[in-house]
Amino acid sequence: MSDTIFSKIIRGEIPCHRIYQDEWVIAFLDINPLSRGHTLVVTKEPVATIGELSDKAAAGLGHALPRICRAVMKATGATAYNLLQNNGREAGQEVMHVHVHIIPRYAPGGGGEESGLRVAWRPTRLDQADGADLARHIARLL
Amino acid sequence: MSDTIFSKIIRGEIPCHRIYQDEWVIAFLDINPLSRGHTLVVTKEPVATIGELSDKAAAGLGHALPRICRAVMKATGATAYNLLQNNGREAGQEVMHVHVHIIPRYAPGGGGEESGLRVAWRPTRLDQADGADLARHIARLL
Repeated sequence: MSDTIFSKIIRGEIPCHRIYQDEWVIAFLDINPLSRGHTLVVTKEPVATIGELSDKAAAGLGHALPRICRAVMKATGATAYNLLQNNGREAGQEVMHVHVHIIPRYAPGGGGEESGLRVAWRPTRLDQADGADLARHIARLL
Repeated sequence: MSDTIFSKIIRGEIPCHRIYQDEWVIAFLDINPLSRGHTLVVTKEPVATIGELSDKAAAGLGHALPRICRAVMKATGATAYNLLQNNGREAGQEVMHVHVHIIPRYAPGGGGEESGLRVAWRPTRLDQADGADLARHIARLL
């Protein structure tokens, strides 16, 4: 367990623009937002990746998300939003403590601002034989 | 509630490379993967966005994620992964039924393949006065 800036925010040692907290999560505005209302939902369980969360902490994180998303959208008037959650350096994770980004998106020309998030999506086609093998392999590990 | 391709997969009317299911979710390989092991975790509750999920369905979704992530990483040998979840057309959502993308990332030169996901992140700085106002506004709506 590393002691990150998020642990300090949870303990109240560093201030934040807090919008919500319960037994499992704390939510506050990102200080380097990609758009107005960009919110971080941080687990109180201090692990680096979502795969390391306990079942209870992960359920608590899931449980909190809809209400936080609804309130962020209602307050900002955004028309859409992305949830992004990065695990590991190769995935762009910078703070090694589980956090979900809620990133409001505003319709172009709708009077809102553009978002600083760009997602480029270059898919391939699933090889059916490899897909069948891989799905069986993953399922056996669950 | 729209009846999407994911509802047909849940009902077994369309095949998939399934890796997991429980009371709340079904998980299977994306047929247009961004990298090997790209998995979709779909809620059985047929709503379009995460903000529309019931508390129970959202908790069930959260609860399932760590174990699925661990199995995908173990089976593929990926070194990192992104979770991405899009809500609304402006956020890139194509199927209007809640789904979380688990996108394995492979270390460059590590023998793995490159991912077809590119996330460009252009943050601004939070205006402290607007941040304080907005956080209070969102918190009041929660």
